[in-house]
Amino acid sequence: MLITLLTDFGAADYFVGALKGAILSLNARARIIDITHEIPAHDVQAGAFTLLAAYESFPPGTIHVAVVDPGVGSARRPLLISTQRYFFVGPDNGLFSYVCEREQDVRVSQLTNEKFFRAPVSATFHGRDIFAPVAAALSNNVPPGAFGELIDDYVRLDPLAPVRDASAAWSAKIIHIDRFGNLVTSITRREVSGEEFDEGAKLEIGGREISSFRRFYAEEAGGPAGELFAIWGSAGFLEIAANRASAAHLLRAERGQRVRVAGLKS
Amino acid sequence: MLITLLTDFGAADYFVGALKGAILSLNARARIIDITHEIPAHDVQAGAFTLLAAYESFPPGTIHVAVVDPGVGSARRPLLISTQRYFFVGPDNGLFSYVCEREQDVRVSQLTNEKFFRAPVSATFHGRDIFAPVAAALSNNVPPGAFGELIDDYVRLDPLAPVRDASAAWSAKIIHIDRFGNLVTSITRREVSGEEFDEGAKLEIGGREISSFRRFYAEEAGGPAGELFAIWGSAGFLEIAANRASAAHLLRAERGQRVRVAGLKS
Amino acid sequence: MLITLLTDFGAADYFVGALKGAILSLNARARIIDITHEIPAHDVQAGAFTLLAAYESFPPGTIHVAVVDPGVGSARRPLLISTQRYFFVGPDNGLFSYVCEREQDVRVSQLTNEKFFRAPVSATFHGRDIFAPVAAALSNNVPPGAFGELIDDYVRLDPLAPVRDASAAWSAKIIHIDRFGNLVTSITRREVSGEEFDEGAKLEIGGREISSFRRFYAEEAGGPAGELFAIWGSAGFLEIAANRASAAHLLRAERGQRVRVAGLKS
Repeated sequence: MLITLLTDFGAADYFVGALKGAILSLNARARIIDITHEIPAHDVQAGAFTLLAAYESFPPGTIHVAVVDPGVGSARRPLLISTQRYFFVGPDNGLFSYVCEREQDVRVSQLTNEKFFRAPVSATFHGRDIFAPVAAALSNNVPPGAFGELIDDYVRLDPLAPVRDASAAWSAKIIHIDRFGNLVTSITRREVSGEEFDEGAKLEIGGREISSFRRFYAEEAGGPAGELFAIWGSAGFLEIAANRASAAHLLRAERGQRVRVAGLKS
Repeated sequence: MLITLLTDFGAADYFVGALKGAILSLNARARIIDITHEIPAHDVQAGAFTLLAAYESFPPGTIHVAVVDPGVGSARRPLLISTQRYFFVGPDNGLFSYVCEREQDVRVSQLTNEKFFRAPVSATFHGRDIFAPVAAALSNNVPPGAFGELIDDYVRLDPLAPVRDASAAWSAKIIHIDRFGNLVTSITRREVSGEEFDEGAKLEIGGREISSFRRFYAEEAGGPAGELFAIWGSAGFLEIAANRASAAHLLRAERGQRVRVAGLKS
Repeated sequence: MLITLLTDFGAADYFVGALKGAILSLNARARIIDITHEIPAHDVQAGAFTLLAAYESFPPGTIHVAVVDPGVGSARRPLLISTQRYFFVGPDNGLFSYVCEREQDVRVSQLTNEKFFRAPVSATFHGRDIFAPVAAALSNNVPPGAFGELIDDYVRLDPLAPVRDASAAWSAKIIHIDRFGNLVTSITRREVSGEEFDEGAKLEIGGREISSFRRFYAEEAGGPAGELFAIWGSAGFLEIAANRASAAHLLRAERGQRVRVAGLKS
């Protein structure tokens, strides 16, 4: 049984090792795969996006453990979410918001059965003491109903979907900036197609207009360095990229910044 | 059989890959788990602490390979340590000092049987050429006595335990600073309890006094940002943390810095 | 079956997780080992060197997937390379150049059989959509001939081997700088032996001469900090190192910089 990990623990501390050890102590055959441990500290929205971009690559039945947990030890609830295809384990703070928007048959339960926790539960490391042992128990075929009661008021982030504004443009956001400096927007193929950029569609960001669209990063790479263009990224969102350069640097862009798609015919 | 790795190799070089390949070449079924490869270069004390904080999470029988080895190729000895619960493989420079303080039935042997080494042994990479193949042989059920003779003069670091000073305060140290800026001290529940902070106990660091104690990071998080407090960390040590801020930045703290616990009734 | 990964994806993004998930979706038993994901972005030569330094540590039959791919989506070809001992999967841009120089029975084929690709293939992430599924198919014992036709005009980088100049010195290059600041040169035991440094051989770099040779880093470590010396590194190349210091900082060295070996008797 596969268990993936996504956290803000960083790679330099003992946290990741302790969490893995806690899983393996309960199921020595569990297969643990790191998605990332480099979510910015306490940045729930960043964790929610990265989980969304990676989780569907894994086979059905995978248990995704995600821990970005500034409220550890407080009244925030620990959750198990089961969907048609996957399990998710982690804190109730919006981290699973985007995957829940996309998944079918979402059932959310609050982890209350302490029989499945490490004893004693520390007040500062639920990754090791609650989420790891619950994931290990799931991988040992404990049924999801054994961990606690269903709830329906779990925490949701603002939805990712762009909204149409008064001038019929789509108002969207930068939701991620990757290591290459590409700006991932919340715009999908439901809002605009690549072809529409040939017909007058343009992206607006920070007073700039981008009307060029490419199919791949190196297309027309011989052109001027720093030329900005739109491109479909591999997570299904429209990205803003720059020819042989970092769009993030060129535009001094920040996550959360507004982006508009204007000039649409319909 | 589980083999964990803890090194100062960093993630960017070929070192970690080469070490893993050396293990898998001798035991294709070995399960390798990274604790961390981001111990600061040559920082034996940092490696010793991180190993201490992580090793007990793993199931009994786990083989812990740790390589922070500024003296590689010199006369410093390569070691195998077996205890009631675990095996440890790495250089004799104090790296296993803290775990040996905690473990029972500690037997330390010098690795001398070259039959278990990769040939030829390089003078610069014993991780790949000595420690990895010895760990692989152990995982293949070679008995610990086959690798070399027992010794008892292995290198020890200064003990972690705080000492009581003339004014009946505990004199301790910052032993680790984590990615969130929390300061891990060498103080444990043997020296002070959380309740004693309600009765006048206080932490002293760099001319500041900290008398507030919390059970979890987000307790009273609505208070002023930067408020300092003490808290039990997940490795069993008392930590100094700051409300929605980095205690390390606020206090300009450094590892090794002195901390005192004063105001104790007994 | 072992599959190793070497990329420039970084650890913070969803790319590595998505690639691993794509492999495991096709072969849930595949064993995936990270060599590194910290190759500098788009730096094909750095990727080629790190792969060269790590790949031979793995057991025969290992499938090495390497993705440093600035031309993703363009006409650059996707490759499968099989040699006497290993498989390699990745883009045709020189990334496998150095390993092909060293391996026997090199057969290179262009990946054209879309049956083995993830559908639809994105234009920006062939790691997930082409290289991962092909590696998974190989690990499921699909024969190498099934993926496409053999080619012989694959992209090669400049060879690593030093050349002899008019004054009978070897002209070589810095090919890598490791995290400890050691400068890995392209000089091997074919060009010079350690003993020849006792007989007048010297390294020349940036106007400096280095005539001291050590067998291990800590040899004569009691001498002045910053003393420069030559040493055989664990990848089989001569390195320039500094006593308890970073040779890279002291020499302001850069990868690609010229190095000469002069003063040879023959």
